[in-house]
Amino acid sequence: MYFSKSFIPILKNNPTEAKIKSHQLMLRIGMIKQSAAGIYSWLPLGFKVMKKIEQIVREEQDRIGVQEILMPTIQSSEIWKESGRYEDYGEEMLRIKDRQNREMLYGPTNEELITDIFRNSIKSYKSLPQLLYHIQWKFRDELRPRFGIMRCREFYMKDAYSFDINDEEAFFSYNKFFLSYLRTFKRLNLSAIPMAADTGPIGGNLSHEFIILAETGESKIYTDKRIFEVKSDDTKIEKKSLSDLRKNYEKFYAVTDEKFDKKEFDEKVSDEFKVNTKGIEVGHIFYFGDKYSRPMNATVDFQGKKEFVKMGSYGVGVSRLVGAIIEAKYDDKNEIMKWPISVSPYECVIIPLINKNDKSNLEKANNISKILKSSNIDFIIDDTDENFSSKIKKFNLIGIPFQIMIGNKNEGNTFEFKEIGNETQILDIGKIIEIIKTSKK
Amino acid sequence: MYFSKSFIPILKNNPTEAKIKSHQLMLRIGMIKQSAAGIYSWLPLGFKVMKKIEQIVREEQDRIGVQEILMPTIQSSEIWKESGRYEDYGEEMLRIKDRQNREMLYGPTNEELITDIFRNSIKSYKSLPQLLYHIQWKFRDELRPRFGIMRCREFYMKDAYSFDINDEEAFFSYNKFFLSYLRTFKRLNLSAIPMAADTGPIGGNLSHEFIILAETGESKIYTDKRIFEVKSDDTKIEKKSLSDLRKNYEKFYAVTDEKFDKKEFDEKVSDEFKVNTKGIEVGHIFYFGDKYSRPMNATVDFQGKKEFVKMGSYGVGVSRLVGAIIEAKYDDKNEIMKWPISVSPYECVIIPLINKNDKSNLEKANNISKILKSSNIDFIIDDTDENFSSKIKKFNLIGIPFQIMIGNKNEGNTFEFKEIGNETQILDIGKIIEIIKTSKK
Repeated sequence: MYFSKSFIPILKNNPTEAKIKSHQLMLRIGMIKQSAAGIYSWLPLGFKVMKKIEQIVREEQDRIGVQEILMPTIQSSEIWKESGRYEDYGEEMLRIKDRQNREMLYGPTNEELITDIFRNSIKSYKSLPQLLYHIQWKFRDELRPRFGIMRCREFYMKDAYSFDINDEEAFFSYNKFFLSYLRTFKRLNLSAIPMAADTGPIGGNLSHEFIILAETGESKIYTDKRIFEVKSDDTKIEKKSLSDLRKNYEKFYAVTDEKFDKKEFDEKVSDEFKVNTKGIEVGHIFYFGDKYSRPMNATVDFQGKKEFVKMGSYGVGVSRLVGAIIEAKYDDKNEIMKWPISVSPYECVIIPLINKNDKSNLEKANNISKILKSSNIDFIIDDTDENFSSKIKKFNLIGIPFQIMIGNKNEGNTFEFKEIGNETQILDIGKIIEIIKTSKK
Repeated sequence: MYFSKSFIPILKNNPTEAKIKSHQLMLRIGMIKQSAAGIYSWLPLGFKVMKKIEQIVREEQDRIGVQEILMPTIQSSEIWKESGRYEDYGEEMLRIKDRQNREMLYGPTNEELITDIFRNSIKSYKSLPQLLYHIQWKFRDELRPRFGIMRCREFYMKDAYSFDINDEEAFFSYNKFFLSYLRTFKRLNLSAIPMAADTGPIGGNLSHEFIILAETGESKIYTDKRIFEVKSDDTKIEKKSLSDLRKNYEKFYAVTDEKFDKKEFDEKVSDEFKVNTKGIEVGHIFYFGDKYSRPMNATVDFQGKKEFVKMGSYGVGVSRLVGAIIEAKYDDKNEIMKWPISVSPYECVIIPLINKNDKSNLEKANNISKILKSSNIDFIIDDTDENFSSKIKKFNLIGIPFQIMIGNKNEGNTFEFKEIGNETQILDIGKIIEIIKTSKK
């Protein structure tokens, strides 16, 4: 891809309307464009990052055996009246009347709809557990949408739902998602801590938020720094192994301000280990038993009688993660972003110095791009005739982790190569490819 | 995947509410579930097919250099007032008021929104052409939704938009999509004919519908059967080659009833070549010049002045294609479906005969599945203890093109193997894999 042909509308300066760094950067480098209050279009650069995040989220759901479906955005009010949430949900629910004056709504979450699908499809406990997820647009009509895609109205979310015969099996399902979320955020190069959390309008009495540290986060967090050392790599998809994993986390105090208790914090965490900072919620899991299955009559046959199924739900904010990664990785003082290679819009940028009368560096760039292509490395070439230093500045903002610079210094088959955050090196193309490939593993 | 663990709720009989065969089959084999009038959830089997279609559509857009973005589902009414379509669009537009009483709508199409994005991003003709697409849910509030996902309210669509400096360049863009659509439908194993069409509420004076033949289609079509022989394989992405391709099609009379003229049909097509049948619209392309760029003031700098960009739009009904493929491929009299391998939910099913006291065939199935897996063939095992013939009947409906049957007849390393529509053969596993792999090419 040539930069001159790409649809990446760069702004010269930080947009004044943006108050946090992810919002600033996303507008500045043309990842998104606002189309209405709290509603955004995703331009190619933003779209690529979000799609890569979506795919990682998907793979980690598939890996624990969750089946993908897709529920619609528009729902009927009827099922919400059955569950009792239609009136409760308040003004954040976007309520709609269709041309026949039927009460509809844009789904803010899907507990009711999935319960309706389940009760019409599954009759016997032998078909349990059922774990289902979808990745779909949601709408919450925030009074004051702000911070770009971090607190917007239309957002992209993965939500999963589990159906089990009893609490023991349901906790097993819950713990599978607990592990799956740790794996997901790790692949995004984020350090996420599971924290005991309130359940809010979803309900139930067991819930964890997954929080990543960021100074601009909306949640205050209180924890023990040893929680960052807990390992999940050897956890198996077995009841005991998963339960042990949760216990290893739950040994350490970790709460958001909703659950904060100073006395408990002081008792459980000695000063040397105390962490009191801010964070961003990127995932939230809930166990709520029969809160929906009972009013909506979702049962299975078990030993001759009908049992209400026990349910949980599990959300990851896919669009929000784009902003969360920027909050965690963007050095706004020096205007340097670096995407984790797993979600970077491109893996490598080739920046040739181009003079109007001398396109030889562009030719070199084209030659290098062929080699990158044959090595399955996704690249973009900045073929514009901007001056060299403004090109580099621009790509420091765009945050593609690897840069190959073709200025006047390169000789023969060696080039200036930089991994953002490291020193520039002079390397031949074979070595460059080796470094990029190694970083993708 | 084991059938017993999958979420594939099969109905014993055809649902009485379904009037056409795609709607019948999709409900019968649990591909979709209606959640409200004209609004459906996609269950795993339906979801898999739709995702594979989406991916083929995407690859063929990428191949002609269209860049992917993602616009939101909810739009502000303001841009529709600018273009003049807000009042025109009628009751099919789902109009919404948010909590602040702002007029919003669920996008039925995106000409306005993309024009708004373009005019804010691109300033110079040097950045043209720009070809952009997205794949997003749309809503049209049909008065009488029917035929399942073929004429529903919430539907999944790929829509692309082109921006050019003049008519000549714009026709070049138009023709790229013309070729891209032929390629797309070919990969879906559909024989689609481009037909001169009315432009309707989109506007403009050049338009083609892509129609596939199906007796249950809503469009009457009149054409010359030699149009099915036109070849596009050697067409290049060059102005002349693409223009020749369109001419080769336009040699033959091909219209829907909106444009039908009996006298012209009789003059241009001799009786031996006449085709007068029904079809399903699966794609529609439009060229409308400055219809939106002029009222919305989308211009680029060209030779010292502002020029309105020339635009076209290009739609493929991704969710509708699932139904269209069924209409084209499902033999409802014999209750036999066969998916093109490119979009089949699984590539192969293993059907072991299982007795309560003898699981040896299930073991054989597991062993075969390992070999399939290592050959990257996606399979499902029917591990239920239903009787053998009802299993086979069920999978004839589900339509996975290849079946490996493990009954009492198989000996050693050979199995009963059937490609749907062909005779059963006794083959060893190596030969079976070779056949499946060949069909994927």
